[in-house]
Amino acid sequence: MAGNSFGTAFRFTTWGESHGPAIGCVVDGCPPRIPLSEADIQPFLDRRRPGQSRHTTQRREPDRIRILSGVFEGQTTGTPIALVIENQDQRSKDYGEIAAKFRPGHADITYWQKYGIRDYRGGGRSSARETAMRVAAGAIARKVLGSAIRVRGALVRMGPHGINRAAWDWDAVDGNPFFCPDATAADRWAAELDAIRKAGSSLGAVIEIVATGVPAGLGEPIYDKLDSDLARALMTINAVKGVEIGDGFAAATLRGEDNADELRIGADGQPEFLANHAGGVLGGISTGQDVVARFAVKPTSSILTPRQTVDLDGNDTDIRTKGRHDPCVGIRAVPVGEAMVALVLADHLLRARGLGQTV
Amino acid sequence: MAGNSFGTAFRFTTWGESHGPAIGCVVDGCPPRIPLSEADIQPFLDRRRPGQSRHTTQRREPDRIRILSGVFEGQTTGTPIALVIENQDQRSKDYGEIAAKFRPGHADITYWQKYGIRDYRGGGRSSARETAMRVAAGAIARKVLGSAIRVRGALVRMGPHGINRAAWDWDAVDGNPFFCPDATAADRWAAELDAIRKAGSSLGAVIEIVATGVPAGLGEPIYDKLDSDLARALMTINAVKGVEIGDGFAAATLRGEDNADELRIGADGQPEFLANHAGGVLGGISTGQDVVARFAVKPTSSILTPRQTVDLDGNDTDIRTKGRHDPCVGIRAVPVGEAMVALVLADHLLRARGLGQTV
Amino acid sequence: MAGNSFGTAFRFTTWGESHGPAIGCVVDGCPPRIPLSEADIQPFLDRRRPGQSRHTTQRREPDRIRILSGVFEGQTTGTPIALVIENQDQRSKDYGEIAAKFRPGHADITYWQKYGIRDYRGGGRSSARETAMRVAAGAIARKVLGSAIRVRGALVRMGPHGINRAAWDWDAVDGNPFFCPDATAADRWAAELDAIRKAGSSLGAVIEIVATGVPAGLGEPIYDKLDSDLARALMTINAVKGVEIGDGFAAATLRGEDNADELRIGADGQPEFLANHAGGVLGGISTGQDVVARFAVKPTSSILTPRQTVDLDGNDTDIRTKGRHDPCVGIRAVPVGEAMVALVLADHLLRARGLGQTV
Amino acid sequence: MAGNSFGTAFRFTTWGESHGPAIGCVVDGCPPRIPLSEADIQPFLDRRRPGQSRHTTQRREPDRIRILSGVFEGQTTGTPIALVIENQDQRSKDYGEIAAKFRPGHADITYWQKYGIRDYRGGGRSSARETAMRVAAGAIARKVLGSAIRVRGALVRMGPHGINRAAWDWDAVDGNPFFCPDATAADRWAAELDAIRKAGSSLGAVIEIVATGVPAGLGEPIYDKLDSDLARALMTINAVKGVEIGDGFAAATLRGEDNADELRIGADGQPEFLANHAGGVLGGISTGQDVVARFAVKPTSSILTPRQTVDLDGNDTDIRTKGRHDPCVGIRAVPVGEAMVALVLADHLLRARGLGQTV
Repeated sequence: MAGNSFGTAFRFTTWGESHGPAIGCVVDGCPPRIPLSEADIQPFLDRRRPGQSRHTTQRREPDRIRILSGVFEGQTTGTPIALVIENQDQRSKDYGEIAAKFRPGHADITYWQKYGIRDYRGGGRSSARETAMRVAAGAIARKVLGSAIRVRGALVRMGPHGINRAAWDWDAVDGNPFFCPDATAADRWAAELDAIRKAGSSLGAVIEIVATGVPAGLGEPIYDKLDSDLARALMTINAVKGVEIGDGFAAATLRGEDNADELRIGADGQPEFLANHAGGVLGGISTGQDVVARFAVKPTSSILTPRQTVDLDGNDTDIRTKGRHDPCVGIRAVPVGEAMVALVLADHLLRARGLGQTV
Repeated sequence: MAGNSFGTAFRFTTWGESHGPAIGCVVDGCPPRIPLSEADIQPFLDRRRPGQSRHTTQRREPDRIRILSGVFEGQTTGTPIALVIENQDQRSKDYGEIAAKFRPGHADITYWQKYGIRDYRGGGRSSARETAMRVAAGAIARKVLGSAIRVRGALVRMGPHGINRAAWDWDAVDGNPFFCPDATAADRWAAELDAIRKAGSSLGAVIEIVATGVPAGLGEPIYDKLDSDLARALMTINAVKGVEIGDGFAAATLRGEDNADELRIGADGQPEFLANHAGGVLGGISTGQDVVARFAVKPTSSILTPRQTVDLDGNDTDIRTKGRHDPCVGIRAVPVGEAMVALVLADHLLRARGLGQTV
Repeated sequence: MAGNSFGTAFRFTTWGESHGPAIGCVVDGCPPRIPLSEADIQPFLDRRRPGQSRHTTQRREPDRIRILSGVFEGQTTGTPIALVIENQDQRSKDYGEIAAKFRPGHADITYWQKYGIRDYRGGGRSSARETAMRVAAGAIARKVLGSAIRVRGALVRMGPHGINRAAWDWDAVDGNPFFCPDATAADRWAAELDAIRKAGSSLGAVIEIVATGVPAGLGEPIYDKLDSDLARALMTINAVKGVEIGDGFAAATLRGEDNADELRIGADGQPEFLANHAGGVLGGISTGQDVVARFAVKPTSSILTPRQTVDLDGNDTDIRTKGRHDPCVGIRAVPVGEAMVALVLADHLLRARGLGQTV
Repeated sequence: MAGNSFGTAFRFTTWGESHGPAIGCVVDGCPPRIPLSEADIQPFLDRRRPGQSRHTTQRREPDRIRILSGVFEGQTTGTPIALVIENQDQRSKDYGEIAAKFRPGHADITYWQKYGIRDYRGGGRSSARETAMRVAAGAIARKVLGSAIRVRGALVRMGPHGINRAAWDWDAVDGNPFFCPDATAADRWAAELDAIRKAGSSLGAVIEIVATGVPAGLGEPIYDKLDSDLARALMTINAVKGVEIGDGFAAATLRGEDNADELRIGADGQPEFLANHAGGVLGGISTGQDVVARFAVKPTSSILTPRQTVDLDGNDTDIRTKGRHDPCVGIRAVPVGEAMVALVLADHLLRARGLGQTV
């Protein structure tokens, strides 16, 4: 059944396989008269692009975005916006091994079980390459949100190593190859990840996304809550195994008097929260505070160490990933996570307007 | 915008407020000729019902379910099944305080910000009372899943206290008031929760849901993955702040060689996983292993300790919850979590069949 | 698969069988702070109610509507509005004949073919009784539309007999038992329908719905056009076999120069159409003119003349409808058609607002 | 709000403007392991392509379809199928007149009213060029339906001229430039349409689509009925103003005893209808008979005769269409109508399977 679309009022649909001729998406429901060109999208793709440091896969593609519809004389028209990126790095190679064997930890076996056929070239549809289109769609979502709403992400954990939250500096995020907000931690991580890469291993990660400027009142309870849509959105990203909002799992260890964010009347006469354990969402509706979401990415299963598996003929065998791999796929998940949060917020912004809210 | 439905092929819609005349739901898309009566649903409601031990709120309602449509001569007909529970414990009382003040940690303020009006009686629509209808709908989902698929839940953390997973015993779950699979832990928790209740405080919790017998091949990538739908489903439950699948956030701390579940050919000639770090889902599609999801519930904000807040007139004030409250709302979230997982699985089972899969 | 909901931003879901304990619906997505009570809905139900003249079925039910949720202190709250009508006229009778035989022209056989089970009592789910809930939901849609948008319907054909459009008088519509806008025609129809009823026969009808005050800009091309949603909406009504917009099928016989509605600048400086062949919709978007839709209702198949059919055991047999029947079901389809048009317009009004339109 | 998708289980989304770089669509939910290549799609596009006789617009484009995803080694994989056609005939020309004026009978003014911006080049998004992608998607739908289900269309009226239904010959349909099943009528139409074209005028048309081999049991009552989805689908086609099923509007003029299709047990022991006034649908569910739908296409408003209109500056003015035009756009609507019916049937086939039906 159809399942490659996300969003209700602002909806996007992606298509394409890792080693097919192209990948693309259709963004439907974008309001008209928003200035938009490829130059608004390309920088976000460049942030996600592999091969920018020794810490990410060396697949090198320019990932040049093209807008094929929905924009006229530099503005959106309200009609669907088609985006496409041609795949260029389709190096001809022998797929024999991954064609016949299931890579542990990958979707190889489940696509086979579900569909009875799979495009094994580079993971086919299940490749993280698909996330490039989320980033592209996310760039359009940011235009819908406007400049008052800002969505930023950071890597807050790499494998066993967390950050010092007291040292959080948004300006540091783009100053290291990890999107790490703690420059000191980033220095340590560089050495650590070199060792991991050389060992042919990989590390997991935790990413935190913070959206500032989100107006109060976004989210449609009970089943289209803002946080449940965020959870769904982030969980669709490759390799994600957990999602939390605000204090998240840590909230389970608190007592009620420590968890509830108290209120006072602020200097402007409006209610003001004294804390944000809730991560900006109460009852599925945004409070006007920062929306804070976090997600966990497992270590990639594409590692150089041979692993036990089976082949299509029903034999036990071993497999090891050759060539390019990401020692920490979580790094490149940062711009993807930002995009997904922006896409959820844009959808809910339009939904709230439909209800008559002035947001 | 409409947001009170969940599911695609198998969909349910709930309605009703805590202190309105009734709550209800409509289950649409249920296959025909499934034997169904109120007796199939009532036991699940009875498990969720408050007032069954001193550890849950003392609101006492029989929560008697009625089927108003969609069943004929003891079988489903394929038409919508309407379920209703009349609210009986609508004790007349003075709502003055919660009518005029926003309870911290509750949805009072966000409903007000979004809608400009709220039914403050018992939390109105945002009350956990709504979850009774999820449990009812979930009982129908279980019938769709059949007896080969079993969905069970357990409380694996109460506040700072975890369980000994080595002592996990499913039979223990219904033998203590916490749905705790570790009987020894449950004994300790009883004393602990008594103290918390007497102190007028509350604790958070973590619930684990395990679905066994799930066939491989459920889940529609990329945006309707089985795990992203589970994440969304569980995050819609009141007070939930985090969701994880399989190893979840712990996976972020692992190395690739430890996380990927290796494969061997089993005794029956079929591929067999040697571990289940993935929680039964790869690439958004079920593997045939147990589906394992966990979610974190914050401590209820309805506590006896006065908390700072503001009132409708823009004044600073204090509030404390009077009367009935749940010292650990996570307990009653166990049957709700089971229901949500069953509902997601039933939806995906029908979706997979639509694609021609024999599941 | 689920299929008992209609609408996207403003959505309703109906449930219930003709002879079950009740019928109901859930209206989801209604904006908050709209004054609403049963008294706003009941008059529309009274218009549709059978047994009001000798020309409609003599089933007598008060069809008393109850609002069970979503309204607080006389205003909508933005949460789902549950409506219910208890079925009172469930006269105990022998269903033996229609239980075992398929009535020609009815859905008896297709429900059986599709579901393998059917609630044969009064047609079960396929009964026109379901349309009472559309009328109720439509009354809420009218409140969303506000008083500037008016949706009215009229019977413009009864069997072979049309009306004199030059004699159209909206005031006449409620002055005869046919909702006929031509009082002279209505007089003739009364005699004609008496004869048809006495002969145990039935007549088809054509209903025209006109919505005035509809702002320009409603409708989401390409697949959620205003007119395609109207066509779908009207075609869901029992016994409807055709739908047309504006000139409809007659447009097929015109030449281009006669069909295109020319434009001039009006007295207010705004574009003004010189005609309305289009029925108020161009390219799926409302023009600001009257929206005009027409639909054809077949003659009911519940007639006194015996008809050839088969029974569940695979035998040829005959069947004739006993007791109450509507000699022209199209009459009661007038308020139902109005309701469906109002529901489509309300949905599109909210959708347009979500896009930022000031409608 | 998003509105460029159609279908639920089998869904397609189109994008693109008449004179943009390309048009395309994404088909999502197609079952896996169906043999598919461009050669399966191209012939249907060739049937729809303009410029094949003097009776259709002389815009000449090869309309070469490309599959960009979802097919691997000649078979569908269950992942989204992206289709694209590059626009080649983007002749550079002066759009000054249609840029500044609204063509009567076109969507120019409503797109302007709704979006405040429009791509005026060739009608932009509202151009019938979009229907090429429906035909392409429809070719995939036919593969889903399999060879036992056949969907064919014919022009049964051109302006004032009907056909002799007794002379209906499916083999004649592809033997004349009108898809007319009555060869004699086609001969007359050729001369008539020459005259119309030379006069710079245009004619409307009625198209009939017949699907044979449709199994009983397709359609999800009450709001996703097979016929209501057909009505919606056909009404989304450019210039369509009416839709009917079976006897359609003519049913309104019948008496009950003439309209209801009687039943007998057939030679194979199964129920058999003695007529098909219903057009193969009862209660929104297919009966197993031919599904018959008809739709009316208005005469194109792009004619050579000057028509009164207004310009963007609020002045009265005149406009006449220059260059290429279709004297009867209904001709090319025949393959489009076939495609839409095939798409609806494929969607409902998968939906029925999801419910457990063996169709």
